[in-house]
Amino acid sequence: MNYILRDENALYYECGYSSDNAIFVSLGSEKWLITDSRYTVEAKENVKGAEVIEASDLLGALRALLRGRGTTKLLFDPKEWSVSALDTLRGKLPHVRFLPRPDFSHRKRIVKSPEEIALLRQAAELGREGFATFAKYLGLFGLDRREKRLHFEAKAAMSGYGEYDLSFDPIVAIGPNAAKPHALPTDVVLKEGDLLLVDAGLKYRRYCSDRTRTLFVKEGAAFDDEQHFSSPKIQKAYDLVRKAHDRAIEQARAGMTGARIDRLAREVIEKGGMGEFFVHSTGHGVGLDIHEMPYISARSGTRVEEGMVFTIEPGIYIPGEFGIRIEDMVVISGGRAEIL
Amino acid sequence: MNYILRDENALYYECGYSSDNAIFVSLGSEKWLITDSRYTVEAKENVKGAEVIEASDLLGALRALLRGRGTTKLLFDPKEWSVSALDTLRGKLPHVRFLPRPDFSHRKRIVKSPEEIALLRQAAELGREGFATFAKYLGLFGLDRREKRLHFEAKAAMSGYGEYDLSFDPIVAIGPNAAKPHALPTDVVLKEGDLLLVDAGLKYRRYCSDRTRTLFVKEGAAFDDEQHFSSPKIQKAYDLVRKAHDRAIEQARAGMTGARIDRLAREVIEKGGMGEFFVHSTGHGVGLDIHEMPYISARSGTRVEEGMVFTIEPGIYIPGEFGIRIEDMVVISGGRAEIL
Repeated sequence: MNYILRDENALYYECGYSSDNAIFVSLGSEKWLITDSRYTVEAKENVKGAEVIEASDLLGALRALLRGRGTTKLLFDPKEWSVSALDTLRGKLPHVRFLPRPDFSHRKRIVKSPEEIALLRQAAELGREGFATFAKYLGLFGLDRREKRLHFEAKAAMSGYGEYDLSFDPIVAIGPNAAKPHALPTDVVLKEGDLLLVDAGLKYRRYCSDRTRTLFVKEGAAFDDEQHFSSPKIQKAYDLVRKAHDRAIEQARAGMTGARIDRLAREVIEKGGMGEFFVHSTGHGVGLDIHEMPYISARSGTRVEEGMVFTIEPGIYIPGEFGIRIEDMVVISGGRAEIL
Repeated sequence: MNYILRDENALYYECGYSSDNAIFVSLGSEKWLITDSRYTVEAKENVKGAEVIEASDLLGALRALLRGRGTTKLLFDPKEWSVSALDTLRGKLPHVRFLPRPDFSHRKRIVKSPEEIALLRQAAELGREGFATFAKYLGLFGLDRREKRLHFEAKAAMSGYGEYDLSFDPIVAIGPNAAKPHALPTDVVLKEGDLLLVDAGLKYRRYCSDRTRTLFVKEGAAFDDEQHFSSPKIQKAYDLVRKAHDRAIEQARAGMTGARIDRLAREVIEKGGMGEFFVHSTGHGVGLDIHEMPYISARSGTRVEEGMVFTIEPGIYIPGEFGIRIEDMVVISGGRAEIL
C-alpha cells in the first residue's frame, strides 16, 4: 500500500517524530520522512522505521521519490492536503493516480495499543490533578475572579505551569455563558452561588486528556461528582446529566454501535423532559488528536471494540440561563467501559 | 469579482466577524457569511456589509447560492481550501470554473488603513509592556528558572494574565538553545551570565504584535537595546545584529523592494564576517496574521509602500553556542520606517 501523510499527529504515529514542515511517505515496505534542514538532526535521532530525507522543497523531493520508484497509485487524505499542495504534486506526475482516503490515519488509530492506553491513562490522571490545582485558585476569594482570569488560571493549572501542552483551549464559563457552546471568556466575575463549567485537558507525551465538570461555587468547592445547586431547576438538570453520564458508562459494551451508546445517555435526558437541550453528541474518540474516531453520536454505525478510547459527555444547555456537562474518558477493556 | 474565503482572518477582514465554521461569499456586489447555528446570533450582531446565512451544511448552502445566482466563475485561495472541501463543492457544480488565486486575502491586506495601524501600534505598545512584566519575573532569582517555566511566565506576562490572546507560542531560549530556530523549552535552568532570547507577541482586537530581544542575564536585567555580554564573541555578534537592525530601519524608504531592505541589514552582518550565520530573511508583514505580506527577504520583489507594516529582525546563530535576534515592527509613514 502506497500512501503520503502531512498531519503532524499522523506523522508521529507512523514514525515517532513530526515537524510542522514534513511529509511521510510509504511505498510498499519502504518508508521515508521528508523534512527541511531545521529539523533533520532531531528527526534522525527520533524517527523509527523510516529513512529521513532532507529537502528545502518537500514536494519536489516527494516527486523525485515517486518518479524514482515508478509509483502509479498513491493514497492521500483529502482533508489533510490543500488544493495548492496536491496540484503542485499532481502537475508533474501525470502517471500517478492520487486516490482520496478520508480519515486514513484516524482509521488506523481507532484501536489503541496497551502502550497508548497507558499514556492516555497518565494524561487523564494528570488532567484530574490539573482540575484539583485549579480548584485551589477557585477557593481563593480575594483574587481576580473575572472569567478571563479564571480561564488563564485554568490554563496555568492544567499545564502544570508550563510542564505540559494543553489538548485544547479550555472552556471556563460562568452561569449563562456555560450555555454557549463556543463561549469566549468575558469580564463577568465569579461569585458564590454561581454555576461554573470547566472543560479542559493536557497532553502527556503527545496523548490528550479531556474532562468536564460543572460545579456550584462556594467556599471549599471541589470538582466532585456530587454537586448541590441552590436552584432546583439547575439541580434537576445536573442530576439528569450525571445519571446519563453514569448510565452510558455502566451499560456500554464492546460490540455496541456509537449510536447505541449515544442512546444510553440521551434516553435519560429525554425521559427527564430535557432532551431538546442536549444539543450535541455523547462523545468522541481521544488519542493523539483531541477529536478522533470512534464518534459516539446518533448517526455513528461504528462498533466500539476492545482498546478504543472515547469520551462520554452528555450535557443540558438552557440558553440565557445555564449549561451543564459532565465528561470523562473511557477505554473499552474486558468488554466494558472503564473510566481512565 | 466573485470569490469565496474560509480563513478566519480573511473573514474578519471582509465583514468584521469570523467563526471556525464559516464561509464568506462575494458575488458581484452581494456578500454573505454562511455559518452554523452555534454562531448565527453573534454573527448577526457583528457582521457588517454582508448577509448572514445559517446552515448546518455550509458547502451545501454555498452550492445553492451559486446555482441560484447562475455563477460561472469563482476565485478561491488554493492554500486555504482542502482537496476534500473543493471536491465536494466542484462535484455538483459542473458549470462553475474555480480559479485559484494564491494569497488572495493577504494581497488585499498588504497596505494597512489608519485604523489598522492604530490597532497595530496599540498591540506593539502592549507587547512592550508584556516584555517589561516578564523582565520582573527574570529578576526574581529565588523562583523556578527552568526554560519551561520561563516559557510559561512569558506567556502569562504577554497575555496580561488572560486579557489578551497571544500572536504565537513565544520562544524563550537560553544560550545554545537560542541558536535553534524551532527550540522547544527544556529543563535547562537560567543562571546569571547566560544569554536569553525572547520572541513574543500578543493580539489587540485581533491585530498581532511581534518583538524579539536578546539579553545578558544579571541582577536588574531589562530588555534594553544596549546589552553587555561577558563573552567578546557574543558581544561582537550582538553589536552586529543591533547595527543591522538599526541600519535597515533608518535607511528603509517607500519604493524599495523587500530584497533591498533585506540587503541593508544583511550587508552589515556580512561585512562583520558573520553572514553565513544570518540564516533567515530580515522580516515579514504583520497584521491579522502574524506572517503576512510584504516579505523582507533576498528574493522579495515587492515594493514597500506607505501604510505597510512589517518586522525588521536580523539574527546571528552559532550552532551549539548561542543565537541572537533583535526584532521590531515598523510602519512605512512619510516615506520612512517608523518603529511601532
